[in-house]
Amino acid sequence: MKTLQPFQARTGEPLGAPLMASTSEQVDAAAEGAAQAFASWSASAGTTRAALLRGLAIALESDRGGLVTLADEETALGPVRLNGELDRTAFQLRRFADIAERGVPFAFTDDPAVPGAPPASHPAMVRLRVPLGPVAMFSSSNFPFAFSVLGGDTASALAAGCPVVVKAHSGHLLLSNRVFGLAQQVLSAQNLPAGMIGMIQGGGSDVGVRLVRHPAIAAGAFTGSTRGGAALQAEASARPRPIPFYGELGSINPVVALPAILAARGAELATTLAGSIAMGCGQFCTSPGVIVLLDDPASDAFVQQLTTALAAQKPHAMLTPGMRSAFDAGVVHMAAAGAQPLLHEAGSAEAPRPYLAQVDTVNFIAKAELREELFGPSSLIVRAGSVAQVLDVLHAVGGSLTVTLWGAETESDEVRQIVRAATQVAGRVLFAGVPTGVAVTAAQQHGGPWPSSTQPMSTSVGDAALDRFLRPVALQDAPAWLLARKGQPC
Amino acid sequence: MKTLQPFQARTGEPLGAPLMASTSEQVDAAAEGAAQAFASWSASAGTTRAALLRGLAIALESDRGGLVTLADEETALGPVRLNGELDRTAFQLRRFADIAERGVPFAFTDDPAVPGAPPASHPAMVRLRVPLGPVAMFSSSNFPFAFSVLGGDTASALAAGCPVVVKAHSGHLLLSNRVFGLAQQVLSAQNLPAGMIGMIQGGGSDVGVRLVRHPAIAAGAFTGSTRGGAALQAEASARPRPIPFYGELGSINPVVALPAILAARGAELATTLAGSIAMGCGQFCTSPGVIVLLDDPASDAFVQQLTTALAAQKPHAMLTPGMRSAFDAGVVHMAAAGAQPLLHEAGSAEAPRPYLAQVDTVNFIAKAELREELFGPSSLIVRAGSVAQVLDVLHAVGGSLTVTLWGAETESDEVRQIVRAATQVAGRVLFAGVPTGVAVTAAQQHGGPWPSSTQPMSTSVGDAALDRFLRPVALQDAPAWLLARKGQPC
Repeated sequence: MKTLQPFQARTGEPLGAPLMASTSEQVDAAAEGAAQAFASWSASAGTTRAALLRGLAIALESDRGGLVTLADEETALGPVRLNGELDRTAFQLRRFADIAERGVPFAFTDDPAVPGAPPASHPAMVRLRVPLGPVAMFSSSNFPFAFSVLGGDTASALAAGCPVVVKAHSGHLLLSNRVFGLAQQVLSAQNLPAGMIGMIQGGGSDVGVRLVRHPAIAAGAFTGSTRGGAALQAEASARPRPIPFYGELGSINPVVALPAILAARGAELATTLAGSIAMGCGQFCTSPGVIVLLDDPASDAFVQQLTTALAAQKPHAMLTPGMRSAFDAGVVHMAAAGAQPLLHEAGSAEAPRPYLAQVDTVNFIAKAELREELFGPSSLIVRAGSVAQVLDVLHAVGGSLTVTLWGAETESDEVRQIVRAATQVAGRVLFAGVPTGVAVTAAQQHGGPWPSSTQPMSTSVGDAALDRFLRPVALQDAPAWLLARKGQPC
Repeated sequence: MKTLQPFQARTGEPLGAPLMASTSEQVDAAAEGAAQAFASWSASAGTTRAALLRGLAIALESDRGGLVTLADEETALGPVRLNGELDRTAFQLRRFADIAERGVPFAFTDDPAVPGAPPASHPAMVRLRVPLGPVAMFSSSNFPFAFSVLGGDTASALAAGCPVVVKAHSGHLLLSNRVFGLAQQVLSAQNLPAGMIGMIQGGGSDVGVRLVRHPAIAAGAFTGSTRGGAALQAEASARPRPIPFYGELGSINPVVALPAILAARGAELATTLAGSIAMGCGQFCTSPGVIVLLDDPASDAFVQQLTTALAAQKPHAMLTPGMRSAFDAGVVHMAAAGAQPLLHEAGSAEAPRPYLAQVDTVNFIAKAELREELFGPSSLIVRAGSVAQVLDVLHAVGGSLTVTLWGAETESDEVRQIVRAATQVAGRVLFAGVPTGVAVTAAQQHGGPWPSSTQPMSTSVGDAALDRFLRPVALQDAPAWLLARKGQPC
């Protein structure tokens, strides 16, 4: 039996006794339990789904103190952030409860018969959506509540009518087990099958790969690194029956700041941006990793302001010692690729120091390693000699969860060109503020072109996250009893 | 230079002089021309898109006589069918013109700012959709108009704001070139870039693979065999930047006929079904390839009725000599896998004879080769001993464009179970009529679970075909000038 040792994030010391990794039989049993639960859950009413989701939200809140303490020990993210994240997690459970109760998963298009000759004529058609089936859900390291056992993927899958099997993240195993225990209590209290929310755990990739390969699994949802997500995406595609795999991967989130706004508000924006870079020790998929500045005195001044503001930031410990090593190594790689350091201080054993460097457009475009996500409190300034170079930088990024554009208040050809380039590489384009912080709301889009997502047409945050787990089906000449179900699958 | 020889479908004789296969440089030039056209087309108004689509419809209709004659020579599908298909093609061009003019591609979700504390608060958000970019479009053999140069993929891509590069099908090269010439005239008359609709041609897979690999290509759309589609899907996924690939592949389209309706209307249904099996020489992706019957005297009678009705059908020539050989070989493979022939006559040199065979549930589930599409006028009856076996048969099919269920007018547990299984394996479930014939309408879903499509959440027919080429983007705190564009990308 393989064992898994939980750790204190701040010290790297073991936390409690080792846990057992899931065996192959346990992985299979979780997938099969989810498949059994799917039989009834896929045909459940919106009110039933809402009751479960609300029950899960209440369970999280009622164990808040213990959960946050444990999460803080395992992740070092701090109680303020973790309480906020728990609030957000309960909020999105309730939001998807409302969505289910409002009947969104059962919405249908009624397309009455048109008599006559083809091509204009057609039989009576109804287009509805059916749940895909059990979802393999891969938790992230950096959101121990919101992208984990009862996070957004689980909430949206359950609302859609799909059971989930969660692969717990090894960075917060104790928390995952505690939340999973709460979920099981809620399922039991509501007389729902235990297999509706399954959980597996393992150190390497073997349990996750086995889960994605299981014939009962109908979709994957993943938040994590590009390398890990791409590997699981390849597994999902290589199955005898390929399945959709929604991977939310790495992103460098360019911020384009035009000279006029920097001249007017540079100091304030530098402080805001420094806070965003160092927030959560830079461990956000929306952390601003690239700052694109046009050659201009205001940009020169902003570089100074940002360097100063970032130097004043005091990042906390990283999520795991491995992430810290990767960050330190990444900084070395940046320098080797030609990035000129502006702020580069040795961190303490506990926490890293913020890192800021600068590079020109030509180098940024020439060296792929400068365009890779460096997970941690760091950013890379790219100096562009022209708007054309700004566009080249954005196109070289290729795909990003976000692009932020400061200074686009007035329309011009150049601003339009930058907006166009931004919409072509990002899932979300911001015109104020910073990209960290992703609202759970109707119009959110969290997912952009490769390499930021495997399925850029979908979102992992916001109401449309539901759509990932529902497949359209057209009913032709459906009988009256079936139409009376009003979009509810059999 | 490689050459391509057009053929007479009925005789296999050469038709005119050989054509030149596209060179690598020509493939690249087509992709780059489309990328150049994308710059303006992606930001074009709905009325501009509508004018192009309507111009293309008129161009097809104005050359109807010549086009249909040429198409008939190259495909043997006959003038009645081909005139109808041209009508349908013009109809869907106009339908997507209306969709563009109504502003569907520019529809957006306005999500005003909510003040206060997170997680309920959020900035002003607008969710809109942007065109993906140039689409590589792979024509089918069996729809020389409707799934070819100016077919549904092209119509929906252009309406979405995406130029296309068409890979002409080698089964109707002269027709494709003639239609392409018409398209170029329309583009020229409307002062639109020639690169908006590009075309390439080649005998093997090399030109298509080169096209899918080209960095400027942002999506693929394909109608054809599972083998060819899976190969191109793999190319799309293996790119440095993977792209969505919408492959509409093979399908065996089970028809489940319950005893009571067969007892009441067996003879009539047998005639209808025989017509569907032999229609177009069985060369439809929705051709009913499997008929599932419960053990019952009414089923026994239906088998006789269907055998008789199918024997009376006189299929025309197949699309190519290669398809004919594949059909003849497929029939031999069916027998080798244990299918008991009910109707098996040697065809003439010109046209095959309909083929009907029977197998039991256990054998059907055990032998994958019995579940593969046999392209041509054939069907396989599967005898089931119970409703549970019917469900097993459907689950063994795994994915299909359609499932047809006759006899579901009255609700019962068993009927619900079959409907459930049908919705889980198909994109369209019919309760009357036959699966051949796919209406271009609002609620259509033409695409089902693997192996019938590579992207079962999407449809290649009907209004939602547009959605394949638009990617959601959220604008956060967008400036007034950008909001005033009302969802129109820059």
